[in-house]
This record gives sequence, C-alpha cells and structure tokens, in this order.
Amino acid sequence: MGESKKQVGVLGLGRMGTALAGALLGAGHDVVVWNRSPLKAGPLLDRGARLAATPAELASADFVVSCLSTYDSQRPVLAACAPKVLVNLTSGTPAQARETAAWASSAGVEYVDGVIMAVPQGIGTAQARILYGGSSSAFDAWRDVLAVLGEPVFLGEDTGLPALYDLALLGIMWSTMAGYLHALALVGTEGVTPETFTPMALAWLSSVGGFLSGIGAQVASGDYRTDVSALDINAAGLALLEETSREQGIGFSVPAAVRELFDGAVAKGHGSHAIASVIEEIR
Amino acid sequence: MGESKKQVGVLGLGRMGTALAGALLGAGHDVVVWNRSPLKAGPLLDRGARLAATPAELASADFVVSCLSTYDSQRPVLAACAPKVLVNLTSGTPAQARETAAWASSAGVEYVDGVIMAVPQGIGTAQARILYGGSSSAFDAWRDVLAVLGEPVFLGEDTGLPALYDLALLGIMWSTMAGYLHALALVGTEGVTPETFTPMALAWLSSVGGFLSGIGAQVASGDYRTDVSALDINAAGLALLEETSREQGIGFSVPAAVRELFDGAVAKGHGSHAIASVIEEIR
Repeated sequence: MGESKKQVGVLGLGRMGTALAGALLGAGHDVVVWNRSPLKAGPLLDRGARLAATPAELASADFVVSCLSTYDSQRPVLAACAPKVLVNLTSGTPAQARETAAWASSAGVEYVDGVIMAVPQGIGTAQARILYGGSSSAFDAWRDVLAVLGEPVFLGEDTGLPALYDLALLGIMWSTMAGYLHALALVGTEGVTPETFTPMALAWLSSVGGFLSGIGAQVASGDYRTDVSALDINAAGLALLEETSREQGIGFSVPAAVRELFDGAVAKGHGSHAIASVIEEIR
Repeated sequence: MGESKKQVGVLGLGRMGTALAGALLGAGHDVVVWNRSPLKAGPLLDRGARLAATPAELASADFVVSCLSTYDSQRPVLAACAPKVLVNLTSGTPAQARETAAWASSAGVEYVDGVIMAVPQGIGTAQARILYGGSSSAFDAWRDVLAVLGEPVFLGEDTGLPALYDLALLGIMWSTMAGYLHALALVGTEGVTPETFTPMALAWLSSVGGFLSGIGAQVASGDYRTDVSALDINAAGLALLEETSREQGIGFSVPAAVRELFDGAVAKGHGSHAIASVIEEIR
C-alpha cells in the first residue's frame, strides 16, 4: 500500500494544511484539497493538486487529512464529507477529539486523531514528529504515507491522548518561551543583547533538560526527599527574581505565578522537599 | 600562581559551600572554613580542612569564597572578615551585589561577584559553570583556582551582572520546570507515567531550544513578522490548555499567567506577530 499512488484529501489550507498538502504532493500522491477560501490553494494547484469545490468531493479519497483552525469550524465540514478514513490534525482538546471520534464511529469513518509537534516549515523534515491515537488498523495501513509528513508516533487506541500530549508539550514550550523572553527583558535592562545571552541560555536549558528526568523519577516514586535543591530555596530565589524585575522596571507576572505555585507547595509542608513536590499543588 | 598551594577561606557550609570547600580540598589547597554552626564542618575537617572559630580568622587567607544563605546573613560576617580578595557566591540581586562591591571598595577588599549555574553535586564537574563579574585582575589571578569549582566565565567589571544573569537563567529553569510539572500532572490524569512522557518531553524541549535562537534574533531586530506561528494562535492554544486542565481537574495558574501575558500582547496589536513580540508586554 505504501508504494502505490494514493488519493489523499486535505481539508484546510492554513499554513499547516498547505505544508501537509505540499509534502504529500512531494511524495507523488494524488492530492485533492478544499479550503473555505479557494484562493489559498493557488500554489498547490501549480504543483499538481486538484481543488474540490465542496468538502463532499473529498469523500471518495483513499483517506482525508483535516487541518482546520478549530473544531467549531471543522464540524460542518466533516458533516459534509464523511471519508473512508479520517486523520484529524485539527488542534483541540482531548474531549473534542473523542467527540469527533464518536461522530466518526456513528458515520462509519475510520478515525485517527493526530497532533503535529512542528512548525509548518518543519513538515516533511526529520524535525517533525506527529503523535497519533485511534484506529490502529487505519494507522498501520497509512503509516507509510503519514511518514512523509513527519515521524509518526502511535500512542494507542485512545483518540484523546494525542491532544493531551500536544497540550502538555506545548505547555512546556510556552512556559519555557515565557521564561526566556522574561530573561531577555531582564538582562536587556543592563544592555545585554540576545546574541550575548542566548548561547548561555541554550547551554543552561540543556542542563535543565537533564534535571527534568530526576524530577520525573521523583514524581513517579512520590519520594520528594532531596539533597540537591530544596523547594524553599527555589521559592526564595523566585522572590529575588520578582524583586529584581521590579527594580529593573519590567513585568514579572509569570515568575510571580510560578512563585505562588511554589509557595503553595511550601505552605503544604514541601519546603524541604524537591521541586518535584510542586506537582502535589497542581494535581 | 595556579600551580602553588594557596590558602583559601570558605565562609558558609550549606550544601553549596561544603561542595566548594570539598572541591578546593580535592585540588590540594589549604582550606580554612567557617560556619555559624561549626558542626557542619565535620566531614571537611576529616578531609584536611581547618575550622576557624570566627570569620576574622579567614582575613589572612589568600582569598575567601563566601557562600552564605542570604546577603542579610552575609553582611555581619563580611564586616568581621575583610579579606584581601573576596569571591562572593552568595545568591542575591544585582543591587545587593553592587552594594557589597561598594563596601569591599571602601574596606580595601578586591571584589569578584559570582553565581553558580549548577547544583552542589555538579561542583567540580564539567557540568558546572560559574559566572563572574568584578575585578578583572583578581579574576585573572585566581582563575586557575576557581576553575576547580566549575568552568569560569567572566562577564566583565560590572559586579551586578552575574546576579542578573543568574536570576534570568534560573527564571528560565523555574518556568520550564513549572511547565514540565504541569505537563506531568496533565498526562497523569489519563494514566500516562513520567517514564513514558519524559523522553518525549526531552526531545521536544530540544526542539524548543532550537526555536529560542529565532525568537532572540527577532527581539534583537524588533522585526516580529512571522510566517511560522502567530501569537494569536498560540494564545488560543493556551486557552485550550486551560480548558483541558479544568476538564481534567488540575490547577492551571501558570499556564493562565502565560496566557494573560500573551493576551496582553495580542491586545496591543501583536496577534499576527511572532511570539517574540511578547517581550514588548514584559518590558
């Protein structure tokens, strides 16, 4: 199946949908696309894609990838196009993915949910990883075609898991980016440029990555004892970060939220425990 | 100078001070230690350190490393011991470091401020990096001895910069850890273990590190145009993370703070700009 030319439908031609359709075209597949505004299809048509006038025209495709902006905008589109196999890459919550899976089941559609851990420019490169959950028979059948989009990782039959992983991983990204932007703003108050600071930040982030495995092991065991770095010392450090941010005249809402979270865990008796104990305050 | 045996004083024997004194002993230096509670010195005395009864006894050392819990606890200790050269590794704010430098100048003490980007267990290993600022002549003279503690990086004559870098880098760590713990709590609601999730989180964090250089370049140029990922899409994603956290019954105070920060930048017209534009909301 992986060797032959397939007709693949792509619903939604935002940046990501366009990148997906482009990668499928690049792999030699027969690609039929639909977008609310057909003008966006232009560059893909030049590369050999066919434009569908309505979502219903995609129902005969071997499988359909949906990448719309929201589940709300996706619902009527899917109702108009119940394909044989649907790979749903629209971003949403686990509950939205499971609702769509329930609809698919009732409509006789084989359903795989997926989330893309990459920016559109990364699609089709070794940097892109796509997490899938749902019908394992559909995933196995289409794995080779999906592999042209990015490394496929199957999380299991639960259609809610990819969205859960996606939000969890993106949450790490947003937190890290907020921390980095705060750091740039802070050192910037003394004239330190991003060019000077970033190499040090990246080396440090690599060290921080090393700390996370230890934190994960402590969360798994529930044993928060530490001889490395106690939570109360880190909470005190966050207070210094707030104080310094105030002195340097920049905002500090995100560090303040992290400090309040840490302080909450300290108030529950975790002050001498490891940072991992903060999960008790989040749960 | 680097080859000969030096008398080095260490003020403060918390976990970090003990690790510093241990590394200096390991490199063959004559180490004299002081701590408010002398009991903590036991293991170091077994390894050949000498115990000072008062901070004043360290004034004759070739140089003194101070690693106390706070600047408030450090002030009277330094007043009692004005050494020839002081390397101040006590954690604090840039303002506290500069105040101490001003005191050192008035007391005829050569002053270098420093911050340790490592946990105590990392001291003396290739993972430890220590950032210094202050007297370049003192730093140059003692660089080889300081190198036994961790890789020394000299940021310049400004004694406030190491603390600024320290807080900025720790802020990245705290944000990233808070994001990771939230992620563990979130996937944990569906029974996904840290062992299963963490390898994916680490691979993703490495991708995120790759994104930071691009963000730094945009901050440097002030050109926030993007064809990769617009801020409004990321703010919408944060709202989904909040919604999902609520549905799964876990706290979401840190993601909410990040969303409010992003929303603030969107409200100022940065919705179609890159995430880098959020720095305008922090500044």
